[in-house]
Amino acid sequence: MNVEEFRKAGYAAIDRICDHFTNLQSTPVKSSVTPGYLAQHIPSTPPQQGEKWEQILDDYSSFIVPGLTNWQHPSFFGFFPTACTFEGVIGDLLASSTSNPGFNWASSPACTELEVLMMDWAADLLGLHKDFFNSSGKGGGAIQVTASDSALIAVVAARSQYQRTHPEVPHEKLVVYTTTQTHSLGLKAGKVLGINVRAIEVEAADQYALRGHALRRALEEDTAKGKHPFILIATLGTTSSGALDNMVEIKDVAKDYPSLWIHVDAAWAGVALSCPEYRDKLYHAEINEMATSFCTNFHKWGLVNFDCSTLWVRDRTLLTEALDITPPFLRTKESDSGLVIDYRNWHLALGRRFRSLKLWFVLRSFGVEGFRNYIKRCISLNSSFQHKIAETSLLEIVTTPSLSLTVFRIPPSALSPSPTTSTSASASSSSASSLAITPEAREPTLETMNLVNQAFFSRLSSRNDILLTQTVLNGIFCVRFVVGSEQTTINDVYNAYEILVKEAEGAIEDWRAKNPVTLSQVGGTSKPTP
Amino acid sequence: MNVEEFRKAGYAAIDRICDHFTNLQSTPVKSSVTPGYLAQHIPSTPPQQGEKWEQILDDYSSFIVPGLTNWQHPSFFGFFPTACTFEGVIGDLLASSTSNPGFNWASSPACTELEVLMMDWAADLLGLHKDFFNSSGKGGGAIQVTASDSALIAVVAARSQYQRTHPEVPHEKLVVYTTTQTHSLGLKAGKVLGINVRAIEVEAADQYALRGHALRRALEEDTAKGKHPFILIATLGTTSSGALDNMVEIKDVAKDYPSLWIHVDAAWAGVALSCPEYRDKLYHAEINEMATSFCTNFHKWGLVNFDCSTLWVRDRTLLTEALDITPPFLRTKESDSGLVIDYRNWHLALGRRFRSLKLWFVLRSFGVEGFRNYIKRCISLNSSFQHKIAETSLLEIVTTPSLSLTVFRIPPSALSPSPTTSTSASASSSSASSLAITPEAREPTLETMNLVNQAFFSRLSSRNDILLTQTVLNGIFCVRFVVGSEQTTINDVYNAYEILVKEAEGAIEDWRAKNPVTLSQVGGTSKPTP
Repeated sequence: MNVEEFRKAGYAAIDRICDHFTNLQSTPVKSSVTPGYLAQHIPSTPPQQGEKWEQILDDYSSFIVPGLTNWQHPSFFGFFPTACTFEGVIGDLLASSTSNPGFNWASSPACTELEVLMMDWAADLLGLHKDFFNSSGKGGGAIQVTASDSALIAVVAARSQYQRTHPEVPHEKLVVYTTTQTHSLGLKAGKVLGINVRAIEVEAADQYALRGHALRRALEEDTAKGKHPFILIATLGTTSSGALDNMVEIKDVAKDYPSLWIHVDAAWAGVALSCPEYRDKLYHAEINEMATSFCTNFHKWGLVNFDCSTLWVRDRTLLTEALDITPPFLRTKESDSGLVIDYRNWHLALGRRFRSLKLWFVLRSFGVEGFRNYIKRCISLNSSFQHKIAETSLLEIVTTPSLSLTVFRIPPSALSPSPTTSTSASASSSSASSLAITPEAREPTLETMNLVNQAFFSRLSSRNDILLTQTVLNGIFCVRFVVGSEQTTINDVYNAYEILVKEAEGAIEDWRAKNPVTLSQVGGTSKPTP
Repeated sequence: MNVEEFRKAGYAAIDRICDHFTNLQSTPVKSSVTPGYLAQHIPSTPPQQGEKWEQILDDYSSFIVPGLTNWQHPSFFGFFPTACTFEGVIGDLLASSTSNPGFNWASSPACTELEVLMMDWAADLLGLHKDFFNSSGKGGGAIQVTASDSALIAVVAARSQYQRTHPEVPHEKLVVYTTTQTHSLGLKAGKVLGINVRAIEVEAADQYALRGHALRRALEEDTAKGKHPFILIATLGTTSSGALDNMVEIKDVAKDYPSLWIHVDAAWAGVALSCPEYRDKLYHAEINEMATSFCTNFHKWGLVNFDCSTLWVRDRTLLTEALDITPPFLRTKESDSGLVIDYRNWHLALGRRFRSLKLWFVLRSFGVEGFRNYIKRCISLNSSFQHKIAETSLLEIVTTPSLSLTVFRIPPSALSPSPTTSTSASASSSSASSLAITPEAREPTLETMNLVNQAFFSRLSSRNDILLTQTVLNGIFCVRFVVGSEQTTINDVYNAYEILVKEAEGAIEDWRAKNPVTLSQVGGTSKPTP
């Protein structure tokens, strides 16, 4: 493809993206393809001769697009959002056209320098302590691929530091601390490094957050057993429920364990630190006072296209001590003089994409106010969702909603044989139903509730006009609702609510139809209404 | 930015890319900025209000572009090439617009399915054994970020397998094998995992390739010491000199050490397996017979934009056993049924970009023939370069050139006081010069030669119209010349040669000016011509 062919092909690709976003609302959020669909459309070997670009692009539209899950769809409420802004897309486009592996300053000065500056812009946006700024010359930040990479790097750096100060401790005695609610990144770091992971139990009463006493007990137990916990991966905004580990209490415990590296994984929720009104809730002061490293993913809820996981450390030498290996072919006069950051020593790989470009574009085009407004709008839409849930007895919120995330399920009370199809029947959940069964009788087992909620979720999953994801909180099967798409409006939230109520009704009716015995037993233990 | 604003901004970005590539030949290959230049143009904090797109794009052109190293420049002969094709750019553009983290099948079926198919296309292109194909259901391939990630994953999987079969072996006794010529990825994997690395010495006489006897000796030594070598990272095409480890001999040794995982890192050279005529040289049969895992980077010499490191394993369970951790929120009916590959269990992170799209675009647009022609053209241009080097006595090839890479330096004979500025003076290096100094006298020390060659390289580095990189081969300072840019023509190669001769002359003259004593000493020991 020559330059003029590229101009034409590039315009055509831009047009297809425009069409895609224009029609997004009327497109299914979920693909209806079945496993193996694509092999029916694509040959098993590459063509011998080059093919025409028009055909290739048409095949993209015909075969790839129908197999995509539309994470930017206004009715996408699953997982956590994955950012996709036009500014981010253009950032990726230009970055791709420069194709610089950017492993050190000399390999492309602009790549390193813009990343150095943008990590400071992002630190400023989030209100991080000056020690985390690259301009401090002390700590600093780098863009990583994902929060899993960021956590892995933190664990590697923590282990490296711990082994320098505790050279006698064998590998097998090292322990990484997480909680049962920590993202898979904790367990994965352990698997990759071959290091034991202890997932500390958390309680529903604490909204699934790590408390100081649980951390202290674990530390005391493990230390007594000769184990060496060297890092805690604390989470602000867990995947399951948006739980915020109690950083005030963690700080108090950490004072007694100065060798414990505190990595704060705020992959999803961290960008909300951009709004001053959420900083207290998100333990802003404690992060700044005592986090050894802090990560948030701008590619989740931060308007920057995947990948843009921002990782800061309070002391950059902790990264370079762990990761610096400089072979002769990478030596340059700028690096040797210490004038510049060589980002290859701040991450796992050697080469890296020019990712700061899209962060720059997004922060300039939105401005701090635009960025904050987006975050606030998502949280506000989730508040509206919570208010709707409160209107029905068919659904209940399982744990305190967190920012733009609500975790809910069909409650035990909804299995009462009373008519509960009205969405304004919330009163019935707290008052006696028409059949007036006993409180004991109307409490189905956890196992029953999980089966009913799994059936509810299964009904939701079979639809292609909405996407939510499941989770399990200390044994309770739940459904998650997260707002993140830029296109989501209040009408999409109301529409989601209507769908949820309808499918909850369906799941409950199905359950009743299959459990007449149980129902009659329940009925049998009920006493007549007075 | 709304859809119509994006259309306009997208077109404008495409136009700037077109301008950039149209003007590439007349643009400096190296930036002339100095460390810290960008901070003078960009404020230290993000703007409060969003800014106009035109201004942002203009700032990109004004401040970022001048700070880029132009890796696609026709006079870029450094490092290894980094691919940048228009097809790849459009692949990245569309991938970015879908912004799917693609961690499992359900998260976006097309992302997984296209990667499954494209890894088989790539395996077919390179002639890999059917066990490496995803369609085998046994082994398979996945796109990783870089060869460092691929190697790290191989080491993790190898360690995991070794510890399952040798649970009694402590971590401290494990050893990763590399050679002194292995890319930094070997040492980095060791640092990341906290595992000892042994770099086996290689010899100039073997063109810096690992030989079987050296591997066997290392295995015997370490085993006798109670150490446990569990993986060898063999290289086909080392960074310094393109050395090809002797896979025939490695295969023979490996038969006696069945627990040793053989990871073949062919990050740069592996794509040349696409050409049947290079397969024997690249140990195609041995890779297919005995490699446990194989990696090549299509983002280097394979026309696909960064990042596209293709990693294959002969047995996919070796990856999933090491990396699979499936939390409740990632369970889907498709995964649970085993119908689909969940790529999150084949790499380090959870989320991943839709990278197969650009591989698909490149392989279709170029076709197998177009791909091979590009590889062959690069090798042919390097042959032309070698022929030019043979014409001058100012430069010598240090080790057998490898594919599109030549390693050279100013030879000791060039420091002879005889006039050597003529580029057709090659005969003088093997015959008596006009001053006819003794063979001993005309052999300066290695230290002297390294100083002269460092000065030579320093002169090259100070130019912005050509880019080459340095290396050190068993103590010998050398300069590397690699062809990779799609735009490079024979004229660029001849032009490079002229520059090299001119700067070699300059370096030699400078050395002579600074070393008159040495010269007269050399002259003093010479005997008159007969």
